[in-house]
Amino acid sequence: MTTASDTPPSGSVVALAGGVGGAKLADGLSRELGKRLTVVVNTGDDFEHLGFYIAPDLDTVMYTLAGVANPELGWGLAGETWNFMQQVSRLGGPDWFKLGDQDLAVHALRTERLRRGNSLSAVTADLSAQLGVGTNIVPMSDRPVRTIIHSDDGALPFQEYFVRLRSAPKVQRIAFDGAQHAVPADDVIAALRAPSLRAIILCPSNPYLSIDPILSVPQIPELLTAAGVPIIAVSPIIAGAAIKGPAAKIMAELGATVSAFGVAQHYHGLIHGLVIDESDAALEASINDLGMRALVAPTIMKTSVDRQGLARCVLAFAEQLRKDLT
Amino acid sequence: MTTASDTPPSGSVVALAGGVGGAKLADGLSRELGKRLTVVVNTGDDFEHLGFYIAPDLDTVMYTLAGVANPELGWGLAGETWNFMQQVSRLGGPDWFKLGDQDLAVHALRTERLRRGNSLSAVTADLSAQLGVGTNIVPMSDRPVRTIIHSDDGALPFQEYFVRLRSAPKVQRIAFDGAQHAVPADDVIAALRAPSLRAIILCPSNPYLSIDPILSVPQIPELLTAAGVPIIAVSPIIAGAAIKGPAAKIMAELGATVSAFGVAQHYHGLIHGLVIDESDAALEASINDLGMRALVAPTIMKTSVDRQGLARCVLAFAEQLRKDLT
Repeated sequence: MTTASDTPPSGSVVALAGGVGGAKLADGLSRELGKRLTVVVNTGDDFEHLGFYIAPDLDTVMYTLAGVANPELGWGLAGETWNFMQQVSRLGGPDWFKLGDQDLAVHALRTERLRRGNSLSAVTADLSAQLGVGTNIVPMSDRPVRTIIHSDDGALPFQEYFVRLRSAPKVQRIAFDGAQHAVPADDVIAALRAPSLRAIILCPSNPYLSIDPILSVPQIPELLTAAGVPIIAVSPIIAGAAIKGPAAKIMAELGATVSAFGVAQHYHGLIHGLVIDESDAALEASINDLGMRALVAPTIMKTSVDRQGLARCVLAFAEQLRKDLT
Repeated sequence: MTTASDTPPSGSVVALAGGVGGAKLADGLSRELGKRLTVVVNTGDDFEHLGFYIAPDLDTVMYTLAGVANPELGWGLAGETWNFMQQVSRLGGPDWFKLGDQDLAVHALRTERLRRGNSLSAVTADLSAQLGVGTNIVPMSDRPVRTIIHSDDGALPFQEYFVRLRSAPKVQRIAFDGAQHAVPADDVIAALRAPSLRAIILCPSNPYLSIDPILSVPQIPELLTAAGVPIIAVSPIIAGAAIKGPAAKIMAELGATVSAFGVAQHYHGLIHGLVIDESDAALEASINDLGMRALVAPTIMKTSVDRQGLARCVLAFAEQLRKDLT
């Protein structure tokens, strides 16, 4: 067991995450920290489909931390079957968004409990516990915030853009509908105000599609800053490309520099440190020049050892920066 | 193709059905009559479960007429898988009512379309068409009617009694909640008022649990009588027992004679003829004495040939009685 005198340090950590890369680091952090970690998850991708409330990022984080995520697909459950979906197709129903037979159990139980008046936070906590996850997984808000992609094909709900159109339309700007009326989930506020808080980690998720929706919730940016602890991001851009997903394409379309330096610019003013991949070591100096600290580390997570190794680097980096802050 | 001069006669037929036995005869009739048949189905067993609107009798009739019913279970689809259900169990959800992975597609699509404001009739017509059913399958009403079993274990919603408690509690009386506010579905009224109507068939379904709920809908008894065509029931009780389900048990608990004669007494005043099994030939005279006509025929339906054979007997019997009526 980890005690106050061990590395990693005692105290709690908040990670902001969404998507596969973010879930992988959250898993590494979870292996290090267990209950001392709260993962605040993007819900901007959530939507209603076939009558189900679907929360893709919550599920990806939950399944990844439970060790049951599908490694090939990058979403859903390992060993999944598709008999429901095939029958939906046969019956002429919408089949562009794939729902696995086992995955559907989460969607059905979540939807029914939300309809009965439970909060998304409460339902997530219960489902996570049933899946054996020891870490706190919390939606950014219990109120609806919906990511809308304004593109050369018009305004697209996120899943239309991401799944149906395979991120093909050119992005002009990204909006978070409902954000102005949202408030952070209670557990988000509690985790960010906890006296035990030692670090805040922005996981290597898409900055525009996974982290920005979280930052769009009123109070969250202020809570992050007011926590007075190191805020560290891990660049999802490695050698000018994203491991997965449309982050690099979107950065280019929005006129950003498609590199870890561009990520540093995007988070400038919020973060104290940025972890960049070894292949981007040449960017270290220019990132430091922005007034933040860069740490060069192996950031590609192919195995659980990679995840845990990166988690340790990030936590050590945070501890180092914490000494600078105090 | 069937023409006006063929057997079976031209003209349309309405069948009342619910459950496996009823669905089998409806299938035989459907093979004979195709679009000229309207099957009015019990919806007293319908309920909401895990957020899904579930209509067991509509599904049994639909799946049976589509040729995709599960012959072993007596409900659901052939070749079904249960991965959703296993995951629901793992997640601590309710698992006493089994929902197959493919079956779930019907529940999800139906539920979503009902929520969008479509009628149960419209959704049923669409799902039936997608499954390739050529016969009209119509819920008795688009408004909720719920069968409640008043038992020595108290008042039980139908599925609690039938599935969870396996029909064990002793029945005192049966009520149809909401019936007083129900109206027949438009297509029920149209089918029963059609000038082409030649016969009305009460399928060998449980008289108390499948046919009585249909008869509890205001206007339906009057529409049946006003149609002026032979009304023929097929006894679900053969040699003093039901082929399947709790019909005989319930008849005994309610003090009825547990035989085809008891069925004749139950439908007395409504039907003109009762088809009884060859093993019950001894009851023919006493049934005739009630003021209706009995027809002895092979009524056990093990094969599709049996179904179609019984359908032909029933239709011929109807034609014979029609000549008596006119």
